[in-house]
Amino acid sequence: MSIRVGIFGYGNLGRGVEAAIAQNPDMELVTVFTRRDPASLKLRTPGVTATAAEKAAEMADQIDVMIICGGSATDLPVQTPLLAKCFNVVDSFDTHARIPEHFACVDTAAREGGKVAMISVGWDPGMFSLNRLLGEAILPQGKTYTFWGKGVSQGHSDAIRRLEGVADARQYTIPVEAALEAVRAGENPELTTRQKHLRECFVVAKEGADLARIEKEIKEMPNYFADYDTTVHFISAEELQRDHSGIPHGGFVIRSGKTGMHLENDHIIEYSLKLDSNPEFTSSVLVAYARAAYRMSCEGMCGCKTVFDVPPAYLSPKTGAELRKELL
Amino acid sequence: MSIRVGIFGYGNLGRGVEAAIAQNPDMELVTVFTRRDPASLKLRTPGVTATAAEKAAEMADQIDVMIICGGSATDLPVQTPLLAKCFNVVDSFDTHARIPEHFACVDTAAREGGKVAMISVGWDPGMFSLNRLLGEAILPQGKTYTFWGKGVSQGHSDAIRRLEGVADARQYTIPVEAALEAVRAGENPELTTRQKHLRECFVVAKEGADLARIEKEIKEMPNYFADYDTTVHFISAEELQRDHSGIPHGGFVIRSGKTGMHLENDHIIEYSLKLDSNPEFTSSVLVAYARAAYRMSCEGMCGCKTVFDVPPAYLSPKTGAELRKELL
Repeated sequence: MSIRVGIFGYGNLGRGVEAAIAQNPDMELVTVFTRRDPASLKLRTPGVTATAAEKAAEMADQIDVMIICGGSATDLPVQTPLLAKCFNVVDSFDTHARIPEHFACVDTAAREGGKVAMISVGWDPGMFSLNRLLGEAILPQGKTYTFWGKGVSQGHSDAIRRLEGVADARQYTIPVEAALEAVRAGENPELTTRQKHLRECFVVAKEGADLARIEKEIKEMPNYFADYDTTVHFISAEELQRDHSGIPHGGFVIRSGKTGMHLENDHIIEYSLKLDSNPEFTSSVLVAYARAAYRMSCEGMCGCKTVFDVPPAYLSPKTGAELRKELL
Repeated sequence: MSIRVGIFGYGNLGRGVEAAIAQNPDMELVTVFTRRDPASLKLRTPGVTATAAEKAAEMADQIDVMIICGGSATDLPVQTPLLAKCFNVVDSFDTHARIPEHFACVDTAAREGGKVAMISVGWDPGMFSLNRLLGEAILPQGKTYTFWGKGVSQGHSDAIRRLEGVADARQYTIPVEAALEAVRAGENPELTTRQKHLRECFVVAKEGADLARIEKEIKEMPNYFADYDTTVHFISAEELQRDHSGIPHGGFVIRSGKTGMHLENDHIIEYSLKLDSNPEFTSSVLVAYARAAYRMSCEGMCGCKTVFDVPPAYLSPKTGAELRKELL
């Protein structure tokens, strides 16, 4: 009996979840819920059609777990609590500062519905959070570093696009190699924002735009660029399309810690990701945690959960005995 | 109220656990059980004295969790089932092929005693196993690689020491850099034993020993060296003591996988450890899982568990709310 999955929202993330479900023989896609006209949505899974978002509740008994693929700014704070009343759900809420608030709100809804709601699943928050926790639990005397990139930041790309004279833009966040090396060497450096990451921008200017002004406005933009060493390259629309149309990302979580009665021994734990497609990797994590959410629900659990609450065995389709024999 | 911990066995691992407990303010060391004369054991924790191993059972109500620090070959298969009848226990059983058998045996004992018994905790098995599971659960279309080193292999060092004419020896297992790079590049290579690891040996020969014969015997030793590119260096006892008295180790677990409807995107997940002291790091993992074992027992669970069964939050002294706010 496969796990019956619904997808709520069909952007990059929803499409990634669809692809990930196809890789997991114990899961099947029931439908994709959309706020657009369902007839306009061409899914890539044979035999599956889209359904209007407002019909979701009617299908509660046909779906074991719903993967909510909306954005964190306005979609998920509304959708996750609402859907958690009728479905086991998983979301990728990634506004770190608002996680406690989202958790409380989703927890109330999920308990009301007797469902499991897994929030903030992906790689950061998600796998990176897990490694931050493991690192400090194992090496309490130490320091944790998170670096992001090299990868595309949608928020920073958008900020550039809003400038006058800019037709299109792509921004890469890049960890500073020297900082990474100092951390790996166990030096436990104190790093400023500027010392941790670089920002590299590829900008397509509108005809006749003042390039010097655009570059200056980017580099001086508060919060987004002012605190970083930023480089700006002006390129053609064709070059942007040819060389920068992917959505790669990745990063590093490094725990540097000491052990021994006199803290005489150094240890480095490093977790890193190098991703061709940020949304497809996030989707793959969502699908593994959807399996866990369903299983935890089957065992009678309910309420809001995060990656911190999930026994790893629940993520795998293998039995406990298989896992111990093959992977332990 | 701190978690009251007992240590069973006081070799490198037991000493490492003692040091790790000192780093965790929510835990306190009650005593170290030893088969030696307890009076002969000088502990490094102020106010704590050793106790004869046979008196362990009498202290069952004074200890919340026992960390068993014996060897996998002969100690743990006997000690863990025996102790799991009266204590929550954690061990580092690392004979991979015999884990299912050890699990079954410990599970029976722990259920009989109503205790939680956490086996095969450390980094491999342990953290590496966890990353093998996570990697294949997230990226089911892919390949997992484990590399060990650079680090000291006690078993290989011992094998050299048994040769005629050898006074002492230290063997390092070293991952082949080219193999690591091919894996990181997403090439998914099929690697032979020889292509994955090198073996480097530092040997102190007895006076007048036939060095050429020793080198040949090492390089041709079946299982241990014959399948590897092995280098042998003859050095003095002083050099061995000066340059090779540490017990460093480490390694890499790399998952290389593909996503997308046409598997068009590559992803690399890499987890690595660089450890100055193999036993002290293993001990630090044992102590974090001892915290989890105790908590799971408090919640009424019992039976044999592995790292696959532990919700990560149980490893940290922080509350769920703190973890979500600070680390998610």
